[in-house]
Amino acid sequence: MNGADLLCETLLANGIDTCFANPGTSEMHFVAALDRQPRMRCVLGLFEGVVTGAADGYARMAEKPAVTLLHTGPGLANGLANLHNARRARTPMVNVVGDHATYHLVHDAPLTSDIDSLARPMSHWVGRAVAADTVGVSTEEAIRAAHTGAGGISTLILPADTAWTETEFTPPVAITLPAPSAPDAAQVRQAAALLRNGRATTILVTGMALRAAQMEMLDRIAQKTGARLLAQQANGRMQRGAGRVALDRVPYVIDQALACFAATEQVILIGAKAPVGFFAYPGKPGSMLPEGCTVLELASPDHDLPAAIEALAAEVGMAPAPRLAPRHRPDLPTGKLTPDAIAIALAGVLPEGAIICDESVTSGRDFFRTTYGAAPHDFLQLTGGAIGDGIPMATGAAVACPDRKVIGLQADGSGMYTVQGLWTQARERLDVLTIVFANRRYQILHGELLNVGAGPAGENASRMLDLDNPAIDWVQMAGAMGVEAARAATVEGFRDLLHTALARKGPFLIEAVI
Amino acid sequence: MNGADLLCETLLANGIDTCFANPGTSEMHFVAALDRQPRMRCVLGLFEGVVTGAADGYARMAEKPAVTLLHTGPGLANGLANLHNARRARTPMVNVVGDHATYHLVHDAPLTSDIDSLARPMSHWVGRAVAADTVGVSTEEAIRAAHTGAGGISTLILPADTAWTETEFTPPVAITLPAPSAPDAAQVRQAAALLRNGRATTILVTGMALRAAQMEMLDRIAQKTGARLLAQQANGRMQRGAGRVALDRVPYVIDQALACFAATEQVILIGAKAPVGFFAYPGKPGSMLPEGCTVLELASPDHDLPAAIEALAAEVGMAPAPRLAPRHRPDLPTGKLTPDAIAIALAGVLPEGAIICDESVTSGRDFFRTTYGAAPHDFLQLTGGAIGDGIPMATGAAVACPDRKVIGLQADGSGMYTVQGLWTQARERLDVLTIVFANRRYQILHGELLNVGAGPAGENASRMLDLDNPAIDWVQMAGAMGVEAARAATVEGFRDLLHTALARKGPFLIEAVI
Repeated sequence: MNGADLLCETLLANGIDTCFANPGTSEMHFVAALDRQPRMRCVLGLFEGVVTGAADGYARMAEKPAVTLLHTGPGLANGLANLHNARRARTPMVNVVGDHATYHLVHDAPLTSDIDSLARPMSHWVGRAVAADTVGVSTEEAIRAAHTGAGGISTLILPADTAWTETEFTPPVAITLPAPSAPDAAQVRQAAALLRNGRATTILVTGMALRAAQMEMLDRIAQKTGARLLAQQANGRMQRGAGRVALDRVPYVIDQALACFAATEQVILIGAKAPVGFFAYPGKPGSMLPEGCTVLELASPDHDLPAAIEALAAEVGMAPAPRLAPRHRPDLPTGKLTPDAIAIALAGVLPEGAIICDESVTSGRDFFRTTYGAAPHDFLQLTGGAIGDGIPMATGAAVACPDRKVIGLQADGSGMYTVQGLWTQARERLDVLTIVFANRRYQILHGELLNVGAGPAGENASRMLDLDNPAIDWVQMAGAMGVEAARAATVEGFRDLLHTALARKGPFLIEAVI
Repeated sequence: MNGADLLCETLLANGIDTCFANPGTSEMHFVAALDRQPRMRCVLGLFEGVVTGAADGYARMAEKPAVTLLHTGPGLANGLANLHNARRARTPMVNVVGDHATYHLVHDAPLTSDIDSLARPMSHWVGRAVAADTVGVSTEEAIRAAHTGAGGISTLILPADTAWTETEFTPPVAITLPAPSAPDAAQVRQAAALLRNGRATTILVTGMALRAAQMEMLDRIAQKTGARLLAQQANGRMQRGAGRVALDRVPYVIDQALACFAATEQVILIGAKAPVGFFAYPGKPGSMLPEGCTVLELASPDHDLPAAIEALAAEVGMAPAPRLAPRHRPDLPTGKLTPDAIAIALAGVLPEGAIICDESVTSGRDFFRTTYGAAPHDFLQLTGGAIGDGIPMATGAAVACPDRKVIGLQADGSGMYTVQGLWTQARERLDVLTIVFANRRYQILHGELLNVGAGPAGENASRMLDLDNPAIDWVQMAGAMGVEAARAATVEGFRDLLHTALARKGPFLIEAVI
């Protein structure tokens, strides 16, 4: 057994059995170790942004980390944007980044770079294997860090010689994982006091508070206390649909977010952050809360959120039953396809247990309104604003949940960032339907250009904000990577394609021209 | 005038008039500034790896930096791999990375990250604008750093408020750029002494030493002294073909590289680094030079290499005339298409002044042998080993040289990394012919798996090294982004397509199934 085998066995002993990878020469011994260990499922991404984004989507649904395999500094760099998103979602993940052999670094060979500096901004934990004998211990540290609190990004740098050197076999056993912090009784009492003082209160939640059972308790608390319940703007995973509590999110658009909190006097945070502007806008505040608003963090992301909710319920009591969204199919409009019509069409036919991966950016802003009564589903969002997470996230979610339909709501501009993920969907025969909202522009930026007071786009700006001339042909794009696809520009055409796509298993893409 | 205008005017005053961009909200004021200044040519890339790779290719040919516009930490991260390549090529470049407004950073909004930590490993200079009034000075520093020595990567972080705040108009003027260091007379004399001592000597060169005139002088020195002249394994730009000195490069494959230097007793470096293994291999040395080999750095990359060569010539003398490669068209084989047949076909019809961007990886290893006698051309290589530079580099080279045919030799696995660059070629109607070597695998890794002693690929390894099932359809891929394309699997078919492609202007792609 060499260091690479020890790494592989340590991962498996701790339940990590899925490896999203794009290896290079310095990782060949780990690749050989994976070859000797068929229990590890290896999924190739043709670009590292696919690899890390898929690991993010996987862990959000599997509720355990995947391992990624990345090639030196540039390979890690290619995966950083989706590590950023995963970090913001508090997704657990173990990255293995190969590096030159320890004694080769002195030569400053072409691929040498400061991997530690690259890894730190997007990792909760960065470590470096120093010898084959300690690769197991380093891996355990990485796994422990990934399981700390709500979840963490661990990046283990693996010099080639620590992988290829033989080591005494130490049969790895499962380590004890750290438990989330118990709720703080004083904070619970303080939150209860706020909920009883008669002031306008919002309970702002994310993370494990967005599972069906927790939302039911929260809704019963809200009914009992008159508080408003709200989810963060972006959440890693949220359970919603018919039979579940219908929860709104903080709006993205700054004026709407400010209006949303204008009457709020107190905010109680459960895993969530106090709401801030996604960007700064000249003359507008950074915090979305009115001046003087009281903010109480009942539970941080690293607390046991379900326990915190139970403790709060014990303190303030609950209404007898939660308010659950009824099954509702809004009437489908006709004619030209719009984002709203797409949402309505989906609401009507969404399979139970579907996983929606949302990177629809502007096109999906109104998605919630018409889909509260759709069949119950999980809703996964872009959490860090680094576009290019949608296709990979859907890919990883489908690896984690082979029996559930995954539906990607995909903006076209963002979709182009990691379009290579479609190939992995074809390779692994994943049950993913990607709906591309083809507005052929970075629509959000047209709005932001106005929002920041820079005026409408002229010649040079338009050339940077529009994706026309030529328009991207998503049907050919998907076809190039082995994914069946078709185009719709009318509601009727879209409805028919949706019917076709949902009737089969395997990857499919609809280019929705809106 | 605001900070963004001042930035734009400072760039233009210093001859930087091409902006490769993928902006976001925090860069909207710079976008608006570009809108007010039509002299700046803005080229959109649909992924930041395209943006930085194009800036690399542009500067290699234009001999001046382009500016890139990137969106916060994740946008920079996406561009880092090609910054790594540009850094290794010593390409001058000015990156502008937008960040949140200075006062907004405290809120840790979703897109916040440690941009400085991300930038440092791939930059020679990292700076941060602190106020609108000093954006001009910061930009000048960045430009100066980009022009230091052989060239440098400058990364200027631009908080949104430093861009949007009004500033007193200070008409920017061209700054004085630093000159490269003059050759060191003592080193020149020492090199001359080595060349006279009768030992087996290799002169190893890169950078400006690889221009036609400098290679002619070097060849005359080599003839006079009996030294061998050799180029580094990877070079940013090299002039070659009929009528030029036929220069070999250090081989990539470690055993070949070791053999190449086995008889060498002395190495004189002109801008080059002493040759090392691209990777470490168990039981093989890191340096490619035999033990006891003398190494003398006549000139570092930051020295004036043409002046150093002239000084050396003055010291040791030169043969009367350089040995120049004659025009030569090797006979085209028939039947199944091979990398060798592609090289031979190209050698026969290459347009004079063509720019070859080589990211053919394994398929191009033998390209030089049959193309010494092709029409004179420039040859640009992947310099840092971070794959995904080929399509962007060709894109940027074509922006720099609209009157020259650009030919991309593109491995399929690497091509998928930044395939989005094809769209920019279509959008800008660039005269680029991309030849995809479709072997449908990471062929290099099959070899490396054996090289590192890990044995041939089994089931799990094959799933990570092969790009089959499904094979990528490059004709559809190109078509999806508006680039005309066709496929060839025979020499005859390829020859005909090559004829078609070279007869027209504009982007074209040939999928060469090998």
